[in-house]
Formats: sequence, structure tokens, C-alpha cells
Amino acid sequence: MEYKSAERARTALVKKGLNKNMKKNIIVGQSGGPTAAINASLAGIIRGAMQSSEIGEIYGALNGIEGLLKRNIIDLRKSIKTAEDYDRLAATPAMALGSCRFKLPAAPHEKYDEILQIFKDYNIGYFFYIGGNDSMDTVKQLSNFFKEKGENISCIGVPKTIDNDLPVTDHTPGFGSAAKYIAGSIAEIALDSGVYDMFSVIVAEIMGRHAGWLAAATVLARDAVGSAPQLIYLPEAPFDEERFIEKVKNYSKEKKLLIIAVSEGIKNKNGEYLSAAGASVDGFGHVALAGVGKYLEELIKEKVGCKVRSIEFSVLQRAAGHFASATDIAEALRIGEEAVRAATGGQTGVMMTFERVSNAPYLVNYGSVPIEKCANLEKTIPAGWIIDGCDVSKEMVEYLRPLTTGRAPYFEKDGMPSYLFLNKEIVSK
Amino acid sequence: MEYKSAERARTALVKKGLNKNMKKNIIVGQSGGPTAAINASLAGIIRGAMQSSEIGEIYGALNGIEGLLKRNIIDLRKSIKTAEDYDRLAATPAMALGSCRFKLPAAPHEKYDEILQIFKDYNIGYFFYIGGNDSMDTVKQLSNFFKEKGENISCIGVPKTIDNDLPVTDHTPGFGSAAKYIAGSIAEIALDSGVYDMFSVIVAEIMGRHAGWLAAATVLARDAVGSAPQLIYLPEAPFDEERFIEKVKNYSKEKKLLIIAVSEGIKNKNGEYLSAAGASVDGFGHVALAGVGKYLEELIKEKVGCKVRSIEFSVLQRAAGHFASATDIAEALRIGEEAVRAATGGQTGVMMTFERVSNAPYLVNYGSVPIEKCANLEKTIPAGWIIDGCDVSKEMVEYLRPLTTGRAPYFEKDGMPSYLFLNKEIVSK
Repeated sequence: MEYKSAERARTALVKKGLNKNMKKNIIVGQSGGPTAAINASLAGIIRGAMQSSEIGEIYGALNGIEGLLKRNIIDLRKSIKTAEDYDRLAATPAMALGSCRFKLPAAPHEKYDEILQIFKDYNIGYFFYIGGNDSMDTVKQLSNFFKEKGENISCIGVPKTIDNDLPVTDHTPGFGSAAKYIAGSIAEIALDSGVYDMFSVIVAEIMGRHAGWLAAATVLARDAVGSAPQLIYLPEAPFDEERFIEKVKNYSKEKKLLIIAVSEGIKNKNGEYLSAAGASVDGFGHVALAGVGKYLEELIKEKVGCKVRSIEFSVLQRAAGHFASATDIAEALRIGEEAVRAATGGQTGVMMTFERVSNAPYLVNYGSVPIEKCANLEKTIPAGWIIDGCDVSKEMVEYLRPLTTGRAPYFEKDGMPSYLFLNKEIVSK
Repeated sequence: MEYKSAERARTALVKKGLNKNMKKNIIVGQSGGPTAAINASLAGIIRGAMQSSEIGEIYGALNGIEGLLKRNIIDLRKSIKTAEDYDRLAATPAMALGSCRFKLPAAPHEKYDEILQIFKDYNIGYFFYIGGNDSMDTVKQLSNFFKEKGENISCIGVPKTIDNDLPVTDHTPGFGSAAKYIAGSIAEIALDSGVYDMFSVIVAEIMGRHAGWLAAATVLARDAVGSAPQLIYLPEAPFDEERFIEKVKNYSKEKKLLIIAVSEGIKNKNGEYLSAAGASVDGFGHVALAGVGKYLEELIKEKVGCKVRSIEFSVLQRAAGHFASATDIAEALRIGEEAVRAATGGQTGVMMTFERVSNAPYLVNYGSVPIEKCANLEKTIPAGWIIDGCDVSKEMVEYLRPLTTGRAPYFEKDGMPSYLFLNKEIVSK
């Protein structure tokens, strides 16, 4: 008999019952900020693991590495009873396992030995960490540590971030849903604030400290409502206050609504955040760092003197499961399944990736890259995709559009979302 | 032949072609603040008018009474070509006809004569105004004026407001969708901000100057996520800062997220707005409020010293067509059709209403009341439905739940909403 891969060979052995001891358990954790798609990747990993004859128990670490170190470990098979449970988990925003903001100290450090001991106690052969930049660093550190120790534990990073700032991968699960929510909401704001027959300005402040992908995604609102947002400011291009005011004044000549989309992380030509400059004193005498939206609102009031309102999408933009992109959720599920395949196929120290084949029809391949190529690196918007410091190009639109397509499944009971909550009973070993 | 009503008699005459001159035109306007359901009522009026053999042209006034006075009048038949167009119009949030914040001066005033002349020029027999409190006042004034002049022009008020503060009617179109968006978003915020294993506070500021129905609706989030929001503050109950801080301190003993829902219009025991420092006045002389969320955020920071974030739903809560309630949109459509039936049945000077028959199964009847009973009056939350100044009762939950049920139809193209925009070509007479 011939087998094309080590994976299949091992699967066959397990199937024949020749090597029952080869069955290893998996553990999954989630880390960093929430997205609408991060549980879809968790659902994908659970599904992939259930489909694999090489995998025994499916564990989840509560609150990422932090909970793992406390042995806050649960049995994920207990929460998935029906096929619909996957879909309900995938439709549940934020982290079903909880999150942490804990970064492993550089090795050597006793915490690595602690983790190894925990993995041995739970017979872990595969570790999956769903997260952003910092989480990929954790995967890299652990993978290197296990290799050095000669331990055969696969460590796979599954990307997620609404910011879309992870390198190598074409885009990141969670981004498409946040982009859809933000652009769709901008379209609704345009209808809402455009009902009066007068000039007024809306400044929409959008997440993104260093990379402006989310603010750039507001360009899609033009597909729905025409010209809004008319101006888009990104952290990748220095912000010129005088030119900005001049542009707003020009728009004020038209008797209609002007919508300005702005990344929270825009900076002036000296590289200083605009929000820091806009500090004000609150009712309690504290210096409050005003958001950039509020700052620009005050600036427009002062320099143009028109009706202006700033809107902050705040945390709503990262967990809007009710308005998630079908494409995003489907891809997040699939990348989870592919991560299990990569792990059982012998990979370690890699991050899963999307490679875009074409925009129309939209096609991606699933792959993986050595995690050194991703950890602690940021992908910002190419300079050529930014127009005149206040707009984005056709290439950007073509890049973005497929990622927001379709409405993801959403479950309701009596008008409210029906989420899947995990059974969080701790499994002690 | 016998006919049960004047309406049927006239319909029969028209059908027989005996009295072609009886065919009158209708005109519709929209006024006040946007909702997700106000175009559904417009679609209902158009549908009702198209079904009636007594109605000729179907006109729309752009920007309410203000545009009507400028003869900015369009032909609504031109925009509805297919059955789906109604549904797309109903799924388009905010005012397809545009809005105004113009209140007719008390009669006698030359503006009434101007309107009468315009109605004569356009052969208007029926006037429909979709709006809130101030719009109902306009309907009342015009209806009285036409009666005094002996003019047979029916004036019907079709209620809308996210605030749910119109009296007599059980609830108001637009409220259910806003309630669904707000409560659903609170559930998502609870998942999002609950991912870390620590105590933190979210203060969600919700629209509602005098009536707290929308903030009260956040109670429905508990159906999805358990306890959040734990505290609900309404304008109907005086806000006690000391007791508030005491409660937050008590919650801080539990290591989890605390969500506080607060109406923008809450007042202290002296009846002063908590955000009074930032008060300004809009075109109707209403005090425009901003910042009670921010105020409480700063208060908690100072007195409790924990992690706290305030979130303002801002205009998103009134035009979230993507998350509208199926019940609300269906009722808004139907009340529009019923308004046409009331008008052709000879009614004038009335506001259309819902009368609730039962909660389970949820049943309403459609009716109408003399507009004097509604104009310039506000419906606030019954004292018995408020618990301890910081929560709402079971009766409130039973009242609210049916109004948010189901997802309204929503149309997309390439991932973005596909709205119906009206043909705004002016019809000159």
C-alpha cells in the first residue's frame, strides 16, 4: 500500500487499531481582542478534530495562556451535540473560551516548563492558538521550546483580528465581518443624517491604531449610498489639518451631508496622534484624552462653524455577530479545519493563511507559513492604494468587496440572539 | 344594492365610472427623526393607495411640510415598479422622502392658506403625515383648518418614533426595531467586554429624553446573555448618585462585567439633567443632550476606580435597517395601509393606533383616535413597571418581547445594503 503523506499513513494505522497510543489530545485557546469570527475558527477546529481519527480529547483553555497556566481546561466535546451547534458557535461573537492579554516572557522561563507539564498531563499532541500578533508570538515561542526539548507537540497559529494587520496572509478572519458592519453602518448613518435639507458633517471614528484597513473599508458604503463617505483618513498617510479644513469648507458649498471616516490612529506630519493634542478637562478636573473623532468634531465646529457630530463605533464594531459576513464566517470555520489538517500532517510553528487566487470569481487557497514571517510584524495599506491622503483606490475596493459578501447564519429566540455558551466545567488532571 | 359604508358606496360609483371627478389624489410627508420603520409605513400608504379605486395620483412631499410649502412634490407611482420594490422601500431606513424640523405656526396664519392652495392645485383629497409628537400637531392644525374652511381634505397622522412616547397607541412603529438593535447590541457588548477574567464596567447611553422605553428595552438582552444589563436607569425615576456608586461598588466584588443601561434624559432629584453642563437647544426648542454616559464613566472612575468605558449608540440606534424587527416592519407597513382605509372611509383629524389584544399569542388591532388625544402629549413608563429606580418589571418584559420578534427582510448587493431610492423628479402644477 502506498500513502501520499505521513498523515494518511498514521490515520490508517489508527484505523486499523495498530497503534492506539498514537491518539493524542488537542487544546485550543483564544487570545487578544474579540471578533465576530473567532468562534467560527474554534468551531472549525472542533469539527476538524472530531473528523480526525488521530485525535482523542478536544480541550479548550479558558482565557488563553493565562487560563492554561491555571489549568482552567474544559472538554469541548461536551458542548457540541448537534450539527447546528457548530453553526450556533460560529454565529456567537467574541471568545467563547474567554481571552487574555498575557504575553509569554522570553524563553528560557519556568512558565514554558509549566506548560509542557500541563500538556503532558493532558496528553496534548496539538496546540492551536487563535489570535493576532501577540498570540502568534506565543505560538512561535512554544513551538521553538518544544522542538528544543524534543517534544512532538504541534503548535499552530490561527489568525484573527478585525484590524487585518497580520502579514503574509491575504486577509484575516474577523476583518470581513467588522468591515461589513462598519461600512453597512456608515450607509445607514448616511441615510439617517441625510434626511434634512442642509449641510452637516458626521465624523466616524473607526478602530485601527497603525493600520487603516477598517476605516478604508467604509469605501464600500458608496456601493449603497453613492458618495459617502466622501473623505477617508488612515494612519498610513500623515494628516494635514489645514488641507482638511479646506476640504470641509469646499464640501460645505454643497447643501448636503458630508461623512468623514477616520482611523483612531491618524497622526500629523510630526507623527503625533491627533487625539493627544485634543486633550480636554472633564467635569471632575481630569485631563481626558478626547478621541480623534471628538477632536475633529471640535475642530470643524471652530473652523467651519457648521452642524457636526462625531460617532465612535467603539466595541460594537468587533463583535457584531448579527451583521457578520457570510464569507468571513465560512472562511474562519474552514481555516480552523485546515489548521487541524496541518497539525495532524506534521506541521508546527506555522500560522494558517489565505492566498487569494482571484477577485472575480472570488477564490482563495488555504495555506500556512513559518510563524517567524508573521509574529510581531504588521501589514499596513500599500501607499499606492491611498489617494491624496484622503481616499482609497479601485484596487482597495476590489480587494475589500468579496470579504463582506453575504449574511452569515444568525440564530434568534424571541427576537434576541441565541448564542452557544460552552460547558465550562473544569477537567482536572 | 346595499352598501355598508360610505367608502364602499363611493368605490362603487367610481368603478361604474359614474363619478370620475370624485377621484382625488393623496400626498404623504415624513417628519421628525428617522426610524428603521418609517419607510415601511410609506410603502404601506403607497400600497393602500394603489389598491384603492378612489385614489388617483400618489404624491410625496420632500422634507415634510417645509418641502410641501416649496412645492417639492414628487410622483410616488414612478418609484414602485414591482412587488419587491415595496419590500425594498420598507427595508430602507430613515426617510426616503426626507424630513424637516418645521412646526406650523398656530392658525390663523398665511401658511395654512398656502397649503390649501397647493392641495387644490394638486387635487389632494387625502393628506398623510408620518411622524411623532410634533407631526401630530401639524395634522391636528391642518385638519381643523380644512374643517373650518369646509374643505373635504382628510388628514391622517401615522405614528412613528423610536422613543415609543406617543400616547393612546399601545406602541409606535419604529420602536420595536430600535429596541431590537439596542438590546441585541447590548448582548454583543456583553460577550465582547466579558472575555477578560476581571471586573469592568460598560455604561451604554441610549436615546430617550423624557421617556425611557428604549433604555428599558435593554432588559431583553438578558434573554440572550443572562444578567446583563444589571442596572437600568430611566428618566421616569430620579437618579441618586450615592446609591448608584454604592451599587457599582457592590458589583465590583464579583469578578465580572457590569453593564449599565442609561437613558440620555435621566435627572437627579432636583429634576436637573446629569449632562446639563453640555446642553444645547434644537430647532423645536428641545434641549439636546449629550454625555450622560461620559459623565457616569468619569464618576465611576473617580469614585470606584475600576476599568470603565461608556458607549453611545448615537444615530445608529434609529436607522439600523439591517437589524430591524420583522414584527415592527410588518406592522408599520400595515398601519400605512390602514391609514388609507381610514381616509377613504371618511376619517380626518385622527392618528392611527395599535391596540394590543394579547401578549401570547401576540395580537394587535389597528384603530384610530382623534388626534387631540395624542398631539403634544407624551407617554412615559408606568411607575409600577420600574423597580427600585434601577430595573424594570416582568410586565415590561412581556410588553416588549413581541415587538422585537423576527428579522425583517433585508436586501443586499455585493455585501452592502440595497436600498430603494425614490425618483425625486418634481411634479410642477
